[in-house]
Amino acid sequence: MKRTCLAVILAAGESTRMKSSMSKVLHPVGGRPMIAHVVDALSRAQIDSVALVVGRDAEAVEKAASRGPGAVSCFTQTERRGTGHAVLAASAAIATGHDDILVVFGDTPLITEGPLLAARQALADGNDVVVIGFQTGNPTGYGRLIVRDGALVAIREQRDASDEEKKITYCNGGLMAINGAKALDLLGRIGNENAKGEYYLTDLVEIVVAAGGKAIAVEAPETELTGCNTRAELAYIEHIWQQRRRHEMMISGVSMIAPETVFLSYDTTIGQDVLIEPNVVFGPGVTVESGAVIHAFSHLEGAHVSAGATVGPYARLRPGAHLGEGAKVGNFCEVKQADIGAGAKVNHLSYIGDAFVGAHTNIGAGTITCNYDGVNKHVTRIGAHAFIGSNSSLVAPVSVGDGALVASGSVITENVPDDAVAFGRARQDIKPGRAKVLRERYQAEKAAKKAKSG
Amino acid sequence: MKRTCLAVILAAGESTRMKSSMSKVLHPVGGRPMIAHVVDALSRAQIDSVALVVGRDAEAVEKAASRGPGAVSCFTQTERRGTGHAVLAASAAIATGHDDILVVFGDTPLITEGPLLAARQALADGNDVVVIGFQTGNPTGYGRLIVRDGALVAIREQRDASDEEKKITYCNGGLMAINGAKALDLLGRIGNENAKGEYYLTDLVEIVVAAGGKAIAVEAPETELTGCNTRAELAYIEHIWQQRRRHEMMISGVSMIAPETVFLSYDTTIGQDVLIEPNVVFGPGVTVESGAVIHAFSHLEGAHVSAGATVGPYARLRPGAHLGEGAKVGNFCEVKQADIGAGAKVNHLSYIGDAFVGAHTNIGAGTITCNYDGVNKHVTRIGAHAFIGSNSSLVAPVSVGDGALVASGSVITENVPDDAVAFGRARQDIKPGRAKVLRERYQAEKAAKKAKSG
Amino acid sequence: MKRTCLAVILAAGESTRMKSSMSKVLHPVGGRPMIAHVVDALSRAQIDSVALVVGRDAEAVEKAASRGPGAVSCFTQTERRGTGHAVLAASAAIATGHDDILVVFGDTPLITEGPLLAARQALADGNDVVVIGFQTGNPTGYGRLIVRDGALVAIREQRDASDEEKKITYCNGGLMAINGAKALDLLGRIGNENAKGEYYLTDLVEIVVAAGGKAIAVEAPETELTGCNTRAELAYIEHIWQQRRRHEMMISGVSMIAPETVFLSYDTTIGQDVLIEPNVVFGPGVTVESGAVIHAFSHLEGAHVSAGATVGPYARLRPGAHLGEGAKVGNFCEVKQADIGAGAKVNHLSYIGDAFVGAHTNIGAGTITCNYDGVNKHVTRIGAHAFIGSNSSLVAPVSVGDGALVASGSVITENVPDDAVAFGRARQDIKPGRAKVLRERYQAEKAAKKAKSG
Repeated sequence: MKRTCLAVILAAGESTRMKSSMSKVLHPVGGRPMIAHVVDALSRAQIDSVALVVGRDAEAVEKAASRGPGAVSCFTQTERRGTGHAVLAASAAIATGHDDILVVFGDTPLITEGPLLAARQALADGNDVVVIGFQTGNPTGYGRLIVRDGALVAIREQRDASDEEKKITYCNGGLMAINGAKALDLLGRIGNENAKGEYYLTDLVEIVVAAGGKAIAVEAPETELTGCNTRAELAYIEHIWQQRRRHEMMISGVSMIAPETVFLSYDTTIGQDVLIEPNVVFGPGVTVESGAVIHAFSHLEGAHVSAGATVGPYARLRPGAHLGEGAKVGNFCEVKQADIGAGAKVNHLSYIGDAFVGAHTNIGAGTITCNYDGVNKHVTRIGAHAFIGSNSSLVAPVSVGDGALVASGSVITENVPDDAVAFGRARQDIKPGRAKVLRERYQAEKAAKKAKSG
Repeated sequence: MKRTCLAVILAAGESTRMKSSMSKVLHPVGGRPMIAHVVDALSRAQIDSVALVVGRDAEAVEKAASRGPGAVSCFTQTERRGTGHAVLAASAAIATGHDDILVVFGDTPLITEGPLLAARQALADGNDVVVIGFQTGNPTGYGRLIVRDGALVAIREQRDASDEEKKITYCNGGLMAINGAKALDLLGRIGNENAKGEYYLTDLVEIVVAAGGKAIAVEAPETELTGCNTRAELAYIEHIWQQRRRHEMMISGVSMIAPETVFLSYDTTIGQDVLIEPNVVFGPGVTVESGAVIHAFSHLEGAHVSAGATVGPYARLRPGAHLGEGAKVGNFCEVKQADIGAGAKVNHLSYIGDAFVGAHTNIGAGTITCNYDGVNKHVTRIGAHAFIGSNSSLVAPVSVGDGALVASGSVITENVPDDAVAFGRARQDIKPGRAKVLRERYQAEKAAKKAKSG
Repeated sequence: MKRTCLAVILAAGESTRMKSSMSKVLHPVGGRPMIAHVVDALSRAQIDSVALVVGRDAEAVEKAASRGPGAVSCFTQTERRGTGHAVLAASAAIATGHDDILVVFGDTPLITEGPLLAARQALADGNDVVVIGFQTGNPTGYGRLIVRDGALVAIREQRDASDEEKKITYCNGGLMAINGAKALDLLGRIGNENAKGEYYLTDLVEIVVAAGGKAIAVEAPETELTGCNTRAELAYIEHIWQQRRRHEMMISGVSMIAPETVFLSYDTTIGQDVLIEPNVVFGPGVTVESGAVIHAFSHLEGAHVSAGATVGPYARLRPGAHLGEGAKVGNFCEVKQADIGAGAKVNHLSYIGDAFVGAHTNIGAGTITCNYDGVNKHVTRIGAHAFIGSNSSLVAPVSVGDGALVASGSVITENVPDDAVAFGRARQDIKPGRAKVLRERYQAEKAAKKAKSG
């Protein structure tokens, strides 16, 4: 029989040390709110519902967490009276009856399903309380897990630990699983007779042991339990997250010359035999097909790069950029909401926005689609096998036909038929010797100024 | 009674291993000469005067060091005869009478006021010589600090150390504080009866102990004592310096997705809730106000970014760039000596130099202020709520009025009144079928050439 | 008497875990195939001939390896039956008679000549088999080197090692040197009576010892023996390679503010007192002379930068770019197959391709050489002391004379004589009050739409 599971996510912290205008669980990791990563891990741990305990920014936090399985019920913790108190804010959800209760934090986005599933399995094996712990080289300050004959008998805080206990390197990671049938009873027994007068979830271990129940610890890697209290810790979490994703991609057949300089988003999808040069940023919503090359200093967001296409160096693909097979977008080019056809080239200093560029068309250096008239955006349509001369301006709405040619430096305001040549530039005029005259005049003026001031 | 302090900065090294055309103390860390960092730390350690012992590049070194409190007196060490000899080059300054003499190096820019103040306190406590030491995991090669009953009794060099002494991990960092009243006497007793025939400052410890005086060591973190002998060490020092500044900024409420890719200068100032994406370089003189976003691949120098403004990706702000509230400077845009008004946008491929751009004005893609006529720079003034069409050239001196509109691809050489539309482009001309003719001709030529060569 | 040496490079692996469409030995490190690095190290170890044992992509692998001394003979290993079997694929080469046989791998590109020369010396000293080993902090999984009285007596695989042997941290690196006169005999004695039924080269140690011969181990740094099985390992190898090269350059007098963000190629050459800012990529074929500055975010490939020149930030130099002394190529500029004369400036948003720019000429912002007419590339020639106004298009083939001036926004299609001024732009036309009318019309339309939809 499959066991049901409610996850209680504690996300009511004040985030004071973040010095931020928003709750820390909304700060992004890999391009989305950190709490969404927690929900994803829960989802892979096959939970059924989420109870969210929130404080500040409740609405935004709820929205960010609403991507997992089942419904999210939201509870507000109005006072900060400890983790035990926070979990009880969700009593109504706990009371709906689940086999397993998982208590996790909104600010530990590196957690994966592994330890969560292990904790659920430990409940299935007959334990009443399961603590997720970690081995560490530097245990000072953490609660030590006191394990006897495989059972967890206590969590000893630093200040209460004997010298012998201080040597224990197996520590409390904070996350916990509780037998759903007993959860409310156990949580209700947590007292606040301590220095701060708070209700601590960790007390559950001694409570369940005293009541003749069974507690156990399951281990997670230390990094998975990294919490986020400052922006420096946020950067560290991002760092670990990026390392994980880069490694997964390389193992799947993506080449990165300098993986530490490639920044991925949670949904970045990259095919086999893609080469990514140093210093590339992938914002959300990017897919790159097999055999494409992303050159150095490129920035992609909401873009699709087809097989064999080439991007950069210094290319910026914005949302809606779609590169066909073998297409090229080169240096200092920006493409936004535009289809670049198969084999087409946009190689230098161009802005292509709200446009369709046909297959094998060549867009000359410095070409700009003038898509905005100050009020509305308009579309530019360029056919296949066309040639747009350098430094041209295409004033949308406008179309250039298949096989048409636009002369360099033209301003195109009217449609150009298939196979036509369009000019939109002035004739050249030369004033012989004039530059010399100007130069000499400037020099004389300069000399006069100098004489005056000198 | 406040004690007075003279700092003697030793900066006379030949810098041979730097392989550089200038003294190593002039090489920059965080955008300014490393010796300036030393002077700053001294300044925070509340010293009164600086005596600078210089060799090569004396003038430039003196200038770089002249930013601290009080006057800087400069002494030239003509021969290299050891650190003791170097300090004595400043005898005239030492003889002016200070309570404390601090001896520091021009090439340890990571030193902070902490250990310097601790050394001064140790003098105030009655010690005659204070050595700044460090604990290290790898002491081989360093002089070991021999401490007995809290007092420093000797500095034992590697070659003279017994096996037992070699296990000591507390080492000599080189920096020293000396009782000002006794300094000249003590320094005068240093001999040069050693292999190299040099005068070593470290001998002071045994000298003072032999004379019945008191020596002591105070500890500094190992990194603070990192010296710079090669460009590889310079890069390491820069690395540690950057890490420190990034961490301070994050703790103060600045978000950095990848702090290791953000490069700061000594005077970079960034407000709370600013987001800095990967790969951003801050040259000297930048201030960024609260809530601004600096996107990836941006480069800022001498620029001010107001609250809520957006920079990049790929934006270059040069000295004199001033972005108003909510202004945007986007990709492949360069702004130099220009005011970008509140809410104004310079979003793509533009050069705006020596200009004023009014509030809420939109600068189209590829716009260029032609500010240089080959001899002088001229100013472009654009009003508020104006619209500059893409690929336009504004030939300065010129002005565009409030609410005016410049058509795409125009060259503007005359002032445009408020609310006017200005055109400066040729009419379009179409040659139907001409591209096809050209294409066929090219293909025929190509075929002919091939036939000829084949 | 100089000893002769044949190197056998094993490069027949399937590269399965690379998930690649090409053999792993062809994947680049520092811009060239990793096997080429192996060949270079062999070359510096003064070998005479190479026997290459290949599997997939034989032709390309042979080509990549053909850069060392002497001829490369190529042998195909059709079946994968172990390293011993692989070496025997090259029997014909071994039979030609060399004093020393060096067996190396195509996928360990970090090997240097040091350990290879040490191994050859050990043969010269009378050993029959020499194993290149390494000391490691984490020996689990490696074959341990069993050394007695200075002689190597066995290589013990992990699964066969006693608890005592498992503590040995000196491990088999795989590379080997064999007495040339005995090699075929020894290799012929390797059997395949083991779990996988393969022929292991490591068996040579016990074979030679049993036969009364002498084996020995020589040590290499662990990193030099790093093999490449996945793209993650490839990235690690690249990382170590880059660190080495950066360090060598800094020691030779090149300044790098953030060396970890500078990417070099195998043939990058940089002079003393060059400053390289963060985030610079050097593709193959770049030389930079003394005193030049390469600013942040620059990308160079096949380019030459003369003394005192300045590149970037955000400059892209492509093959054939040649910058004269003191020349400047600035932000968002691309230079390809072009000479930029001494003191000339290409500072903003320009594309200069297939061109000659004379000394001290100033290329205005947004200038584009229109070098491609859709079929052929043409050349632009610009004289010395010329001035090209911003946003100009130079339609090649075309020339601009010495001291000539091109007005901003011009399209130049005809040659401009020395000292002439050329215009190629339309006159400006102003429609007073028209922008206001347009704005009001737009607003009315907008309001109407809104009313309709509302």
